[in-house]
Amino acid sequence: MTSPLRLGLAGLGTVGTGIVRIVQTHAALLEARAGRPVEITAISARSRSKDRGVDLSGYAWEDDPVAVARRDDVDVLIEVIGGEDGPAKAATEAALAAGKHVVTANKAMLAMHGQALAELADAKGLALRYEAAVAGGIPIVKALTEGLAANAIHRVMGVMNGTCNYILTEMESTGADYADVLADAQALGYAEADPSVDVGGIDAAHKLALLSAAAFGTRVDFGAVAIEGIDHISLTDIEHARDMGYRIKLLGVATHRDGRLEQRMQPCLVPEASPLGQLEGVTNMVVVEGDFVGQTVYQGPGAGEGPTASAIMGDVVDIARGLVIPVFGRPAASLVAPVEGGSGPASAFYLRFSLHDKPGALASVAQALGAQGISINRMRQYDHQADEAPVLIVTHETDRAALDAALEQIAALPVNRSQPVAIRIENV
Amino acid sequence: MTSPLRLGLAGLGTVGTGIVRIVQTHAALLEARAGRPVEITAISARSRSKDRGVDLSGYAWEDDPVAVARRDDVDVLIEVIGGEDGPAKAATEAALAAGKHVVTANKAMLAMHGQALAELADAKGLALRYEAAVAGGIPIVKALTEGLAANAIHRVMGVMNGTCNYILTEMESTGADYADVLADAQALGYAEADPSVDVGGIDAAHKLALLSAAAFGTRVDFGAVAIEGIDHISLTDIEHARDMGYRIKLLGVATHRDGRLEQRMQPCLVPEASPLGQLEGVTNMVVVEGDFVGQTVYQGPGAGEGPTASAIMGDVVDIARGLVIPVFGRPAASLVAPVEGGSGPASAFYLRFSLHDKPGALASVAQALGAQGISINRMRQYDHQADEAPVLIVTHETDRAALDAALEQIAALPVNRSQPVAIRIENV
Repeated sequence: MTSPLRLGLAGLGTVGTGIVRIVQTHAALLEARAGRPVEITAISARSRSKDRGVDLSGYAWEDDPVAVARRDDVDVLIEVIGGEDGPAKAATEAALAAGKHVVTANKAMLAMHGQALAELADAKGLALRYEAAVAGGIPIVKALTEGLAANAIHRVMGVMNGTCNYILTEMESTGADYADVLADAQALGYAEADPSVDVGGIDAAHKLALLSAAAFGTRVDFGAVAIEGIDHISLTDIEHARDMGYRIKLLGVATHRDGRLEQRMQPCLVPEASPLGQLEGVTNMVVVEGDFVGQTVYQGPGAGEGPTASAIMGDVVDIARGLVIPVFGRPAASLVAPVEGGSGPASAFYLRFSLHDKPGALASVAQALGAQGISINRMRQYDHQADEAPVLIVTHETDRAALDAALEQIAALPVNRSQPVAIRIENV
Repeated sequence: MTSPLRLGLAGLGTVGTGIVRIVQTHAALLEARAGRPVEITAISARSRSKDRGVDLSGYAWEDDPVAVARRDDVDVLIEVIGGEDGPAKAATEAALAAGKHVVTANKAMLAMHGQALAELADAKGLALRYEAAVAGGIPIVKALTEGLAANAIHRVMGVMNGTCNYILTEMESTGADYADVLADAQALGYAEADPSVDVGGIDAAHKLALLSAAAFGTRVDFGAVAIEGIDHISLTDIEHARDMGYRIKLLGVATHRDGRLEQRMQPCLVPEASPLGQLEGVTNMVVVEGDFVGQTVYQGPGAGEGPTASAIMGDVVDIARGLVIPVFGRPAASLVAPVEGGSGPASAFYLRFSLHDKPGALASVAQALGAQGISINRMRQYDHQADEAPVLIVTHETDRAALDAALEQIAALPVNRSQPVAIRIENV
């Protein structure tokens, strides 16, 4: 196999431009590692005339990414258009139908259509690779589907949205409110004008759904991810958490036990001294637990031109070397429909109550918790301001249903001033 | 490819037994992921009768591992005998000569004979894989040679000897001396009866030499690794380092710039807040810096039955799937003989002097440093005990040759009481 591997590149945004840069900068390196030349033959994007700072004159232009996918001089379609449907999906399907491998960074498309696309790729014996879709430059899909392939994986966890981690880190370090930090992040380009996909946890949940399938051999089931964003996290809770030795992270946790799958993407308290607790800014981290290997941890840049392009081109080198494995590491037809895990394993919770400063207020809260069998591990009552008495409680392990029942009862107490706050403490 | 992949297992120590456990526990999982059954057909070890707690009755026995390598019913030799020469090397060579792939955990053999074995594998178009040889369960060889294949790698760093990290961590947390902690580690089975290969840095240096080849496309050059063990690290220095925000780790650093390779395995100060500074106990960590991806970090168990067997079987799954890439990620013939990097890039140093408590003592040390162009970043002088005045200095960046000249001059000063201590501060 010394004939060149010919790439058709659909999408010339930040990532697409990075791919052009790698191919042009590292032609010799790629040939040495891949065992054959790797070259771009055709490209497509919305605007042909835009100056992207790279020389595109050697590549054939197509207005339609589907046309790139179908060209005779393209062996691999690189899809970096984005969007769960539309041209990205059309081009991906066209490429697979035409017998071409696909490398994509599109987490939304795979989270929604991963099973169908995996079946299509399997039927044709083609690779459909997506390292860049999860945790940017970190080769985590490869670790799960290849390096750790001999393990039964029980749990995958990750901080996989740089925007959210940046906002939470900044709130803690500057003492600014959520809204102010978000506005700054938007001004710096770390957050989109419409930030809801990021801060709402959707983007990270897409990634978690893909990791679950790769880890557990279950079908991608984005709809079953319990998603909670960071927009309701207050500086007060960040500071209280830190006082008790925790930090708040938007953490994805997927657990597979006894055939049941639980997927959660939600703000959690993690111990400050744990690897996840140490994570700063836009860096991503994924933790994998397998039965033979134990715990392994992967950290790196979760987004950006260079890291994402690095992940795309790693997949391309694999294809150039002849590696074709099923999309989620096992034949698509063998992936089992996941059985939802219900409310998941018991865990400890951080609770914050705002009570009227009256005799017996604290007792009534403790009683409501006790009535549901929830025992208290740590408690702090702070100096009250005006009529407000803030109370923090860390529970022992409890299941979510019992906790919700207790919180409902507490919320209805006359001494309660505002909606109680409950944040899971993840044992990492 | 649905015919079984047949393994011949040479070595039934801890790792070999773990491999038997994985194959027996995860037969269905391995078949699903590999696309074909994976089975052990033949085994070999020093003692046939020893009870290893696993059922070996279904496997053919050979007294000689070379015979396992040559059997018609073996497709892949798994070499977990150990030792840089002897039966391990004989069996590996026999397997490659007979057209069988090899998976090994043998860092010493590859560090000494990696180039010759890689050429042999290339000539036959066979895989020779060694994920288990470096950093145990962490899929770091795969990350370097596959996931990050599109990057020019500039630096690889790692804490890769669990015994050393355990000893340094224990010294810090218990306040015990090196000798006492080593004795405890031996009693607990974390250190060998003859610990010199571990605490002398040899084992970790073997691993660094392999990472260099995989990262930079240079020939394995173990002889060029500057090696310094941890046996001279005192509790005093660990405590002073911590006071200044650092921890001491046995750190391997391989740097490749402008065609020059520098490989060092030596105790270093790393910032307490860095991922390397946070590492505790027997866990391993590897940091990789590539031009497009930036910095990625990998953490996990560096040794033990489960993690090592996991890495071996990850390589086996790759082979079952048909992946055959050159040993160090590029054809062996294309690996370039490294040009040594000399004393390496400038860096800051931690210095500790023990001076006689006399007027002008400190000035004479500062003068000697200044005469070599070494400027002082931080200095602390401690209360003197009896006649001894301990002085700590953190320098600005300086090259090692200038520092050595200054230290030689200081050692000869009348005010100097004992050999000055100098430990590199690694910028991680």
